Amino acid sequence: MSHTVELISVGTELLLGNIVNSDAQALSRELSGLGLNVLYHSVVGDNPGRLKAAVELARGRADVLITTGGLGPTCDDLTKQTLAECFGRKLVYHPECAESIRCFFRRAGREMTENNLQQAYLPEGCDVLDNAWGTAPGCAFEADGSYVVMLPGPPSECLPMFRERAAPWLARLSEGVIRSRTLRVFGLGESAVEARFRDRMNELTNPTLAPYAKEGEVELRITAKAATQAEAEALIAPVEEEVRAALGELVYGADVSGLEQVVLDGARERGLTLGTAESCTGGLIAKRITDVPGAASVFKGGVVSYHCEVKAGVLGVSQALLDEKGAVCAQVAQEMARGARRVLGCDLAVSVTGVAGPDPDERGNPVGLVYTALAAPDGVWVKRLNLAGPAARRDRVRNLAANHALDMARRWLAGLDPAGGDWPMDG
Amino acid sequence: MSHTVELISVGTELLLGNIVNSDAQALSRELSGLGLNVLYHSVVGDNPGRLKAAVELARGRADVLITTGGLGPTCDDLTKQTLAECFGRKLVYHPECAESIRCFFRRAGREMTENNLQQAYLPEGCDVLDNAWGTAPGCAFEADGSYVVMLPGPPSECLPMFRERAAPWLARLSEGVIRSRTLRVFGLGESAVEARFRDRMNELTNPTLAPYAKEGEVELRITAKAATQAEAEALIAPVEEEVRAALGELVYGADVSGLEQVVLDGARERGLTLGTAESCTGGLIAKRITDVPGAASVFKGGVVSYHCEVKAGVLGVSQALLDEKGAVCAQVAQEMARGARRVLGCDLAVSVTGVAGPDPDERGNPVGLVYTALAAPDGVWVKRLNLAGPAARRDRVRNLAANHALDMARRWLAGLDPAGGDWPMDG
Repeated sequence: MSHTVELISVGTELLLGNIVNSDAQALSRELSGLGLNVLYHSVVGDNPGRLKAAVELARGRADVLITTGGLGPTCDDLTKQTLAECFGRKLVYHPECAESIRCFFRRAGREMTENNLQQAYLPEGCDVLDNAWGTAPGCAFEADGSYVVMLPGPPSECLPMFRERAAPWLARLSEGVIRSRTLRVFGLGESAVEARFRDRMNELTNPTLAPYAKEGEVELRITAKAATQAEAEALIAPVEEEVRAALGELVYGADVSGLEQVVLDGARERGLTLGTAESCTGGLIAKRITDVPGAASVFKGGVVSYHCEVKAGVLGVSQALLDEKGAVCAQVAQEMARGARRVLGCDLAVSVTGVAGPDPDERGNPVGLVYTALAAPDGVWVKRLNLAGPAARRDRVRNLAANHALDMARRWLAGLDPAGGDWPMDG
Repeated sequence: MSHTVELISVGTELLLGNIVNSDAQALSRELSGLGLNVLYHSVVGDNPGRLKAAVELARGRADVLITTGGLGPTCDDLTKQTLAECFGRKLVYHPECAESIRCFFRRAGREMTENNLQQAYLPEGCDVLDNAWGTAPGCAFEADGSYVVMLPGPPSECLPMFRERAAPWLARLSEGVIRSRTLRVFGLGESAVEARFRDRMNELTNPTLAPYAKEGEVELRITAKAATQAEAEALIAPVEEEVRAALGELVYGADVSGLEQVVLDGARERGLTLGTAESCTGGLIAKRITDVPGAASVFKGGVVSYHCEVKAGVLGVSQALLDEKGAVCAQVAQEMARGARRVLGCDLAVSVTGVAGPDPDERGNPVGLVYTALAAPDGVWVKRLNLAGPAARRDRVRNLAANHALDMARRWLAGLDPAGGDWPMDG
């Protein structure tokens, strides 16, 4: 029998829109990896009656119930109280949990307020899921054919608690595995990708092939279900080959975190260093590069030349050029990239200058007009982009501009024309 | 009668954890602002049977049903088909929608694939919600006491569609308003904040007072329900005063997007300019500052001096100092800030140098050891931070370090000791 999962997230802050339900995303991804089918996410507020009804509903339509949130001292342990009631269990004091909570505060060098000890009450007969990342312990038990797991809500606790504590407990339920491979595509819009693969997507059942639009790029995810990881991978391989044959150089990576990772890996392999010169992206490219652990072996640094003075003074962009043409033009982008290479002493430098919005610049250049450039040992390339589309937003223009700049480096490293590629973007 | 809302999000990609349900957050926030109570979020996959069951359930426990997703050509218009069936309506072709879709592609300069025209089929007798931000139109209708609204899934379409199209349609249901005011607190952990206000939080019913932990800071949200905006604000004001009296300078702003906004506003008011020098935060501070529209009037630029060569060569940090003490020490942080002030020609410069992880640096400095500094016209201040806590993560260390650096500038602008403040952080 295949197990089915419902995630129940508890918290009025989710219903008020104060926070996004990132726990549901993180756990869903993990559960798929264990071969468990997540069929529903439910969110209810801090309300015992509605939570109880949600649990009763979930018991009837899934056999694994995982809750997030409502465990800490600030919410009166709503989730534990309610779930214990639904499954006819008492809450009992676990002295070893109280000790862990005290310990947590000692390690963090902080004083513990007494309300924290509430968290040591857990349903009778449960398996305690010790929380090494925060104070509220989780728990798990089996009752009346249901498998119940309760996890704390803060994302920095929820995911490690799942991986280190809940996943081993759930391993007994797993039959077979689900494996996914995500091909990342830059330079083709979602509907164009979809139109190209529509028939195959409809034909394929195992593995499945599905497109996901991300801002300025598309993911094609191949997902296979099989008894073992090796079998799942054998199902995935021919479909991956087929996609790569169809899209060629537009596929920039598989199971990578983004263009920044591919650029770092490519530069590292060739022993090259990297730098950035950013105007309208304001540090975003450097930030994305340094999000990747180990970036220091490749990335030397960057200059955020938001004002023209910094473009001229730090990067050496010609003041006459800036006076004549303003900051948003192809030559400034090129001089910024050249300047970054020289000032930072790096092999490859990418640059961006443009109008992120919300308003046109003082010369009347429209929102979304962006130039990106790449300076490499063998030359300098530049691209002119119109990233506005019908619904320009500042963060979207900045993200797309960063993607285009990184893609120029990616293409150079792959031996392709850095300013080439095909850009019928969906937006 | 007070109206209650259920959000139903349709998409297997949500259940697989490929994307986070940001639509549910965005719409919940908007709906609260309209005075509508969101009681449930539900997520179901691309499965007509389960979607139908979810709609039947939702009709029984809420009177406003809002769906997101499942409208586009890639999902066979699952949501429209299923909802039309649940409410006994046919899908009919809307030629004006087909024309809008064609128009959208023309404006974007892209070719339209034929599958896009599927999107012009909508339930008979509905109000069409024209989509100016994408291709799939939404729709709304009233049937058997339920109010049904269907919106497209992509976040860049969903939120503007709600604000510009669905909100006016729903305005008929709104009685009274819900208003919130969010006080942002830096320098005190969540459980300390909670312990301090626990009694008041339990006593208060309208307005309510609730804490929300964010990474490295805490939000205190005061929410009032009243007939008019003015009445709601009058309920909020005394509670805000009470919190400010209790927390003093730790409250850094109300209804602001973050420390970066407060720093930009404070500098702008005093006619001062700003710059950054970043090592382990790698551009994150500059990125956060330039996320804010209009940053250009204050922010001159930044240097991401990831390698020591850049610290010495661009910022003028003493090479002898770097050789002797390495990059992670108080003096380097101070010299970076001083250097940024000089090189960028700005009035205030913040700097960060430290170990973001995942590994200690080559001198054995532990993950989370970070120095932040501020250089101002009247001096230079530095702070030594241990940001590791029991569960150090690279992104967490970087975010906290950025917050501390920005808070130094915030405190200087407010006439406080830049290196002061109280840091019993929760982690």
